Amino acid sequence: MGLVSSRGPEGEVAVPSLGVGMLGHGFIGKAHAHALHSVSYLAWPPPLAPRLVEVVGWRPDAVAEAARRYRFERATTDWRVLMEDPAIELFVNAGPNDLHAEPTLAALRAGKHVLCEKPLGRTAPESHELWQAAAAAGVVHMCGFNYRFVPAVRLARELIEGGELGEVHSFRGSYFQDWLANPDSPYLWRLDRQRAGSGALGDIGAHLIDLARFLVGEIAAVDGHVRTVVPERPGGLVDVDDTVEATLEFANGAGGSISASRLCHGRRNALGFEISGTRGSLAFDLERMNELWVHLDDSRPGLRAQGFRRVLVTEADHPYIEHWWPPGHVIGWGDIFVHEIRHLLAAIAGDGAVAPYGATFEDGYRAAEVCDAILRSGEQRSCQRIAYMDPVRAG
Amino acid sequence: MGLVSSRGPEGEVAVPSLGVGMLGHGFIGKAHAHALHSVSYLAWPPPLAPRLVEVVGWRPDAVAEAARRYRFERATTDWRVLMEDPAIELFVNAGPNDLHAEPTLAALRAGKHVLCEKPLGRTAPESHELWQAAAAAGVVHMCGFNYRFVPAVRLARELIEGGELGEVHSFRGSYFQDWLANPDSPYLWRLDRQRAGSGALGDIGAHLIDLARFLVGEIAAVDGHVRTVVPERPGGLVDVDDTVEATLEFANGAGGSISASRLCHGRRNALGFEISGTRGSLAFDLERMNELWVHLDDSRPGLRAQGFRRVLVTEADHPYIEHWWPPGHVIGWGDIFVHEIRHLLAAIAGDGAVAPYGATFEDGYRAAEVCDAILRSGEQRSCQRIAYMDPVRAG
Amino acid sequence: MGLVSSRGPEGEVAVPSLGVGMLGHGFIGKAHAHALHSVSYLAWPPPLAPRLVEVVGWRPDAVAEAARRYRFERATTDWRVLMEDPAIELFVNAGPNDLHAEPTLAALRAGKHVLCEKPLGRTAPESHELWQAAAAAGVVHMCGFNYRFVPAVRLARELIEGGELGEVHSFRGSYFQDWLANPDSPYLWRLDRQRAGSGALGDIGAHLIDLARFLVGEIAAVDGHVRTVVPERPGGLVDVDDTVEATLEFANGAGGSISASRLCHGRRNALGFEISGTRGSLAFDLERMNELWVHLDDSRPGLRAQGFRRVLVTEADHPYIEHWWPPGHVIGWGDIFVHEIRHLLAAIAGDGAVAPYGATFEDGYRAAEVCDAILRSGEQRSCQRIAYMDPVRAG
Amino acid sequence: MGLVSSRGPEGEVAVPSLGVGMLGHGFIGKAHAHALHSVSYLAWPPPLAPRLVEVVGWRPDAVAEAARRYRFERATTDWRVLMEDPAIELFVNAGPNDLHAEPTLAALRAGKHVLCEKPLGRTAPESHELWQAAAAAGVVHMCGFNYRFVPAVRLARELIEGGELGEVHSFRGSYFQDWLANPDSPYLWRLDRQRAGSGALGDIGAHLIDLARFLVGEIAAVDGHVRTVVPERPGGLVDVDDTVEATLEFANGAGGSISASRLCHGRRNALGFEISGTRGSLAFDLERMNELWVHLDDSRPGLRAQGFRRVLVTEADHPYIEHWWPPGHVIGWGDIFVHEIRHLLAAIAGDGAVAPYGATFEDGYRAAEVCDAILRSGEQRSCQRIAYMDPVRAG
Repeated sequence: MGLVSSRGPEGEVAVPSLGVGMLGHGFIGKAHAHALHSVSYLAWPPPLAPRLVEVVGWRPDAVAEAARRYRFERATTDWRVLMEDPAIELFVNAGPNDLHAEPTLAALRAGKHVLCEKPLGRTAPESHELWQAAAAAGVVHMCGFNYRFVPAVRLARELIEGGELGEVHSFRGSYFQDWLANPDSPYLWRLDRQRAGSGALGDIGAHLIDLARFLVGEIAAVDGHVRTVVPERPGGLVDVDDTVEATLEFANGAGGSISASRLCHGRRNALGFEISGTRGSLAFDLERMNELWVHLDDSRPGLRAQGFRRVLVTEADHPYIEHWWPPGHVIGWGDIFVHEIRHLLAAIAGDGAVAPYGATFEDGYRAAEVCDAILRSGEQRSCQRIAYMDPVRAG
Repeated sequence: MGLVSSRGPEGEVAVPSLGVGMLGHGFIGKAHAHALHSVSYLAWPPPLAPRLVEVVGWRPDAVAEAARRYRFERATTDWRVLMEDPAIELFVNAGPNDLHAEPTLAALRAGKHVLCEKPLGRTAPESHELWQAAAAAGVVHMCGFNYRFVPAVRLARELIEGGELGEVHSFRGSYFQDWLANPDSPYLWRLDRQRAGSGALGDIGAHLIDLARFLVGEIAAVDGHVRTVVPERPGGLVDVDDTVEATLEFANGAGGSISASRLCHGRRNALGFEISGTRGSLAFDLERMNELWVHLDDSRPGLRAQGFRRVLVTEADHPYIEHWWPPGHVIGWGDIFVHEIRHLLAAIAGDGAVAPYGATFEDGYRAAEVCDAILRSGEQRSCQRIAYMDPVRAG
Repeated sequence: MGLVSSRGPEGEVAVPSLGVGMLGHGFIGKAHAHALHSVSYLAWPPPLAPRLVEVVGWRPDAVAEAARRYRFERATTDWRVLMEDPAIELFVNAGPNDLHAEPTLAALRAGKHVLCEKPLGRTAPESHELWQAAAAAGVVHMCGFNYRFVPAVRLARELIEGGELGEVHSFRGSYFQDWLANPDSPYLWRLDRQRAGSGALGDIGAHLIDLARFLVGEIAAVDGHVRTVVPERPGGLVDVDDTVEATLEFANGAGGSISASRLCHGRRNALGFEISGTRGSLAFDLERMNELWVHLDDSRPGLRAQGFRRVLVTEADHPYIEHWWPPGHVIGWGDIFVHEIRHLLAAIAGDGAVAPYGATFEDGYRAAEVCDAILRSGEQRSCQRIAYMDPVRAG
Repeated sequence: MGLVSSRGPEGEVAVPSLGVGMLGHGFIGKAHAHALHSVSYLAWPPPLAPRLVEVVGWRPDAVAEAARRYRFERATTDWRVLMEDPAIELFVNAGPNDLHAEPTLAALRAGKHVLCEKPLGRTAPESHELWQAAAAAGVVHMCGFNYRFVPAVRLARELIEGGELGEVHSFRGSYFQDWLANPDSPYLWRLDRQRAGSGALGDIGAHLIDLARFLVGEIAAVDGHVRTVVPERPGGLVDVDDTVEATLEFANGAGGSISASRLCHGRRNALGFEISGTRGSLAFDLERMNELWVHLDDSRPGLRAQGFRRVLVTEADHPYIEHWWPPGHVIGWGDIFVHEIRHLLAAIAGDGAVAPYGATFEDGYRAAEVCDAILRSGEQRSCQRIAYMDPVRAG
């Protein structure tokens, strides 16, 4: 495998490369490919230099073009090929939800590191199986909860860890999109429970659940109200939710709520949260991803100018900004994948761990348990306490 | 009783006056007094001209000064005096929650019109008794859900009624304040269940419930999570909630959620809601009371400039703005009481009804049923369907 | 004259009344009447209790109705009547610009206190004549630059005075409206130089000039670009400006710019400014009148949460808020007239002076000099240094 | 030279590569390198595939590391080497202002295409010389006014071109930064006239001037007020401006103003503009780069919901978004260089021209003339009409 060299204080350093195979080359695959290419010079010197070995797709023409486009060395329509290829050390699963489990399990059995997109599995048991396998394999595993790598979100975590908010007691999160807001928009695979697992809950609600866990702590109980507002669309009957609300109880005594919907006209990708503690508050809106709104009582006593601050999270000492531009030059959605990939590379190189700032398969599993509990709660109309399983089943 | 004259197209018109007695002269009493004074010239010609007859307070000195300040003819420390005074035709109950029921019932028995502050009673049964009495008395009755009279809120209702949003399917409301955010802020009567009935739920959550009903429709079921984050404060033990989350099911099939808390640093009086329908969306924030955010698909097809509009609700054809200033000149929180009082005066004068744009005692009762259901749900951790009572109890 | 009584610590205190005559009862007259009525109980105890004696209008019917509406004791179509009436102690000139000078001069000669709307005169010489007369009369005089009385504006002044911004070096102001944005909107008196003096410059630009002087200091030189974008409208030829830009030099070395226009679609009443100093910044937007945006470097060193703060100027210790509601309850445009009138009453009662927090006729004159210099500069396309005149002309 | 292949409707297509040499590898050089690397797969298929041949820097160590980092084939400290290298077809000048002219002229003489950062030259004559040389060389030339490639800015241009705003009459632009806001921040080369040409004017004001020209039209006259608020800093005397205001007259009769300053606390990179036309308005703020605020009167008559729209410029039919993500996924500052480089590559490939959507050296020159006129106007305190020179001097 090739080497990339960088010069540190002690002179030139060789950076080992890391062979990558990727399943899927659509929207999220493009985001990963962009990050895999650019991480090497943006996060300089990189812990490892990704080498894009092979990409998997469904249509031979399309995957061949994807390989040329994203400069993979090879293309295939059979993901099993990757598992047997020793040049592939990291498997990136950017496929649809019903192709998360089987290829990921195969990659784990083959001893490859794995980055699997969220939701990890379509259900908690499927997710648990993946976590078990990853733990048993002893490889580095990451679940693609990319929003942990938004600088403002990581800053929120660090402010909370640093005690700036005092004791956090409340989390309110919402994730609204509008791509299904028109009842006449057509049926597609994401509306099929068999393929997608769930609807708005698993697709976007899961991000909220992961952020709630990341920022506040483990979720102990939920009370969910899960709806399919538009049960029939041109081309098919919908058997997943399009809208969900839930209240949350955290293990540490905090509480909160989440709302997620694909039916909110004018909200394109509006993930937001507000966190309240005994000493301060935070608010975030993904549509203004470079801002964190912060209310702290740290000002000079008597100053009559208190209020939420619009913090532009682009300072040199803000998380991940070392890779980018001078203050005030905003980053984009695609850029957060650079942070995610760099974090993963560092973990593989042994320069750090995926947890706690990145999501592991354990986090993927735990989010799935919360999702399933919300679905059960919605069916039974009662609060569901969550019993998380250990990584290794008894028995 | 005196007369105020106005000249309409047919010449001078005598405006009959309406004698008013008011219990309470603190924060909310001041708002009512300000409206009672200014409605006559702002909403010109007024349906009736309020005459401020008598004010009730607890401390002789303070109530005497309040009478001088707000130009009531008389002051008393005994609210019973008002009930026997034929000069008093409208009783405004701006007292604390534990003084809503008894004086209001007495006023109703005395045949007076009544405006009672929210929450109507401390519990659903108490509220129901008040509604029963009001219905039996045949007088005009209003519950002080003042936010119905914010121009942006009324415009929201009219846009929904006009079908601009299509079928409304979701309501998300929040009401955050921070006056108890510091755990060391002292105990006061609002934290005593006996006096206040409930905490954040009845005080500010009730506004959300009323707005949900006003804008979307009747609430059929709730699932609540009710918390007392700070159970002890200097000076006393808190036995009411300070934070509440709930999911809502509406009778018409819509759903949603509310959050209310007094513990959110930096949120001074932040009542907000977002409403989603099949054709459009609305959003509102009380801290920017003169704005309604509207997303509608009414633009020229092909125009690449869609987005939420920041509508400044100060146009001549916007609700209630006829009483005020040219476009762009914002109104304040106190001004919405002018709309409320004018609406009430018109109803008393027979020029309209309190319902549906104002809240009656029925609305006060129904909001109380929802509050009580949320409390029960929080205790039992299960969904509560709500059985509303008729105005007249069987038997 | 009647007395209003209030009880202070030493017992009941009689508040003397102050007879008021007002010219004009349209938009701005209504604002003054509302304040004159409500100041007595809002700003309790009032320094003086206004007694509304007589109102002047042009059409007998309309002024009679205005008297009934706003409860003036008398109505007239001849403003000279007021000057001979000893019951009138304060003359409020809320008439059009071409009726500012003559009635105001008469009132001054009659020894009455005067509040004259802005612009004081239509030109600097006319304004100077008014200031001269006021100074000679020895009465209390105020020019209606009401935006000084916005709590956020007064807070800005106090923060600057307190040194929070360090040395102020820049002021950028803009005032955009849209009521003439459509080129087909019809001609009216405000577009006639003879009646209005100037266009956007004197009407709204003058507010910016006053705020620049109020917040930063005296203006020494200007460079203006004055335009009439729409020179002809249905019904007449426009001979005043509709749009103006100017750069400013302050006597203290600061600099800046202003823009004012009546042609900006979507900006209803958008007065804004941004002020920069060596240690901090301020920003304000009248359409969000209750907010002041403040950037100060007062936080704990090392805290990674710096940014502009959205200060809700509704705290008990914020200027003028003592007259209103608890924190977070916003005030409206009309409410600032209560502050203005209270300030004037206190000056008349001897409890304070109009300057520096209110605008005197001197301020009205100085703003007029700046306006005239901008007009001259626009004609000559060169910088104009401003030579202010003394109150008493030599000779 | 290598080939990149892509498959279009007619099968596989070979994409010729383009050899690139770059001077400078700091902030702006990194932005270009990132774009040169990622354009090939983001803007797929690329018109030409950049091949990074050689990078120039000042310190041997640093430039060698830059070559490794950004994967240039070679590194040098002598820019003259590039001019003799036939493998270099495009010269990217990302050096400091005093290294714009000489290397760029050399590259032009060598027949290379050139992308030169802004400001093109330090003065109008220097800029004119560069334009002359570029025109004479017959190569593709671009000046790095990158903000033309912000999707919201390009959309603004297209809306204006499409007549949505009617006749544009006013442009107000501001560009505020704070990196010199503290008077104690130290001296650096950007404060030296010899090296930088001018200060805030040429560095950030030039962006405003280019946007004014791009969006409204040619500038005919200016009136400037140019200041050095902090004339001395630790380490040196400042002989360039730090703050500038100017009024603008456009050749088409429109007018406007610009303000630029490096001294505005809390404004990190706040380039903004507001444009008013007879039928609509636009507003933009670079700190919220993915939004364009639009006010148009295109709604259904009678709809009481007019207002500025917050348009999220991330739709598939918005400019440049084809290269990126689904709607609502924001892009970052660095991403606009991908648009710029792709535009340049297409021009070199003969698939389009740099003008009008990109800035040529003519645009660089014309902006310099405006800057110089503002400086002269500030010195002379009078309006300066601008006489632009032809590309070829009379001779």
